Amino acid sequence: MRITDLDTPSVIIDLDVMERNIDRMHAHLREHGINIRPHIKNHKIPAIAHLQMRKGASGITCQKLGEAEVMVNAGITDVLIAYNIVGDLKLDRLSRLAHQAKISVIADSEYIVNGLAKMATRTGVKLDVFVEYDIAAQRSGARTVEQAVDLARLIERTPGLAYKGLLSFRGYSPDPEYVRRTGDQYERVVSALKRDGIETSVISSGGTVEAWTAWPDICPWGVTECRPGLYTFYDRVKVAAGVATLEDCALKIVTTVVSRPTETMAVFDAGEKTLTEARYRFGGEEGCGLLVEYPNAIVTGLFEEHGIVDTSRCASQPRVGERVTIIPNYSSLVIDLADEVYGVRDELVETVWPVAARGKVK
Amino acid sequence: MRITDLDTPSVIIDLDVMERNIDRMHAHLREHGINIRPHIKNHKIPAIAHLQMRKGASGITCQKLGEAEVMVNAGITDVLIAYNIVGDLKLDRLSRLAHQAKISVIADSEYIVNGLAKMATRTGVKLDVFVEYDIAAQRSGARTVEQAVDLARLIERTPGLAYKGLLSFRGYSPDPEYVRRTGDQYERVVSALKRDGIETSVISSGGTVEAWTAWPDICPWGVTECRPGLYTFYDRVKVAAGVATLEDCALKIVTTVVSRPTETMAVFDAGEKTLTEARYRFGGEEGCGLLVEYPNAIVTGLFEEHGIVDTSRCASQPRVGERVTIIPNYSSLVIDLADEVYGVRDELVETVWPVAARGKVK
Repeated sequence: MRITDLDTPSVIIDLDVMERNIDRMHAHLREHGINIRPHIKNHKIPAIAHLQMRKGASGITCQKLGEAEVMVNAGITDVLIAYNIVGDLKLDRLSRLAHQAKISVIADSEYIVNGLAKMATRTGVKLDVFVEYDIAAQRSGARTVEQAVDLARLIERTPGLAYKGLLSFRGYSPDPEYVRRTGDQYERVVSALKRDGIETSVISSGGTVEAWTAWPDICPWGVTECRPGLYTFYDRVKVAAGVATLEDCALKIVTTVVSRPTETMAVFDAGEKTLTEARYRFGGEEGCGLLVEYPNAIVTGLFEEHGIVDTSRCASQPRVGERVTIIPNYSSLVIDLADEVYGVRDELVETVWPVAARGKVK
Repeated sequence: MRITDLDTPSVIIDLDVMERNIDRMHAHLREHGINIRPHIKNHKIPAIAHLQMRKGASGITCQKLGEAEVMVNAGITDVLIAYNIVGDLKLDRLSRLAHQAKISVIADSEYIVNGLAKMATRTGVKLDVFVEYDIAAQRSGARTVEQAVDLARLIERTPGLAYKGLLSFRGYSPDPEYVRRTGDQYERVVSALKRDGIETSVISSGGTVEAWTAWPDICPWGVTECRPGLYTFYDRVKVAAGVATLEDCALKIVTTVVSRPTETMAVFDAGEKTLTEARYRFGGEEGCGLLVEYPNAIVTGLFEEHGIVDTSRCASQPRVGERVTIIPNYSSLVIDLADEVYGVRDELVETVWPVAARGKVK
């Protein structure tokens, strides 16, 4: 089967590009002596997680318990769930999962630790727990040295739980000065705990941008593990961030031009329900995606199922019935809309992957 | 099972509110003598489509062929696919579908008509075809009287195809003057065709906002059918458009507060992968959704799985572990991320509906 045999819109993954992306990132992290624990949110596909493991990952990272369940069912044996787990329903699921694989979790408040502790005591599970420390003041995570030290101490003295280390995520567009200051705070947490005889065995850092840019300039505080996610596929946001080129974008959407309402306007058959609305991340004029065959075109808007293109800057004009390929703004959201994706090499479809962890938000 | 027994995040549908929404819209359209052909994009659930049929709809509207396949498989027998169908793969699927149910389609170019004609001749299918006419200069559709008349004539003289009428969609924030002018053009198309002995038996108008506001002020040209979609669930965008109140919003997301990083900030367990990014439709300060229990809070941002709330204007503050209910900005996109939704009445879960047409973008 060739790419041209696929109905549209279809999400395709260039396997050569994806494999090169994985090789490069893993080589880079190894070179810095950093352990690799990829975040599977970018692909949600067990086969790719297994490929990452074969290429040197020590385990994977999931955001939601539901993603972790899919991955453990598919044979991944070491999973960090980098998300506060709240409520008896989820704690029950976590205990079942922890009987099947090595699961570590995070906490940023006493409430979270107490929930984990209650479950661990009741079910005999032993859990490694990270203290999440927010280095960019953007979302969850402890915000002061005292909070982090207190939490680590609480975890360490709680039966069934073991303090594993500190975990951070730099977020989108953080203030570099704030991030620098947080580095000192990390060192203070680690030192204070060491004086108590509590060892911080892992300092886990998140994000593809961080993985490429953070050492040694921004994060001099001794990161030992990294959880990049977007490096598998990349996208226009990561190109704009300067950590990839368009040639590194492994995920694309094959679409068909279904209308040419005017001389300089085309409509293709993918809208928000395929590409997502990932526009605001990117500013207005760059548009909602890039047309590979018409790089001067601008995807000016998306309806639910229509993509609107201004082709006035294009030398030639697309015809109705013609296929056009889109590089999306944000690949992790595109994956989460697709039931399946097609792994391609050159022009051939080599594999069909169900997006097994799609929609697993619980 | 009670709502409080559901794991989070879960999409819930208030059945009383939804049924009232359907009753009101259908009564309104009947009062104006307008045929009702609901667009199922808002719910993608066969049981709701059947409810709409029982409540007076003459058939349904789908955007994509894949949605139509789901609905026909579920027993809906009259479907308008309001989308240009392009390519042999889709034309084959269309012919199979047209053997199982009454299917009508649209066209806005000779290319589309020729594809339909080839398929109809080859497979013996007979299709009603609408000419799409863009009344708001926003996406696909003929843009001049001559184009529309020529297309209708072409359809009418093509074996296997019958010209059914004109179909429009007003789009988002159209220029009211442009829409008014288009009304005259509709009349000119209908008259010109009548002189040829070609009857325009249906004039089909789209959209919930249009359904509530368009007659007789903006569309005086004799609409006979309407295809509202969002009226089933509504959402904040439709409240802002003035056609619903917050009490009419039938779809909500039950979430849990998982972190309280500061005194005036909360994080709940739904992000872009549950709520979608539907922010740009709405301007910045209104945020990415409304917290029912904390109406003065602002959902200032979404990460993939985190919702960030500024609670500084709230009299009381949510606790970690507390459940909060979100009214989303754009309900049709939320549905397309959910595997299943829970129909609730008062506090009880009455039904669990798989979102059967979720992701059917082909």
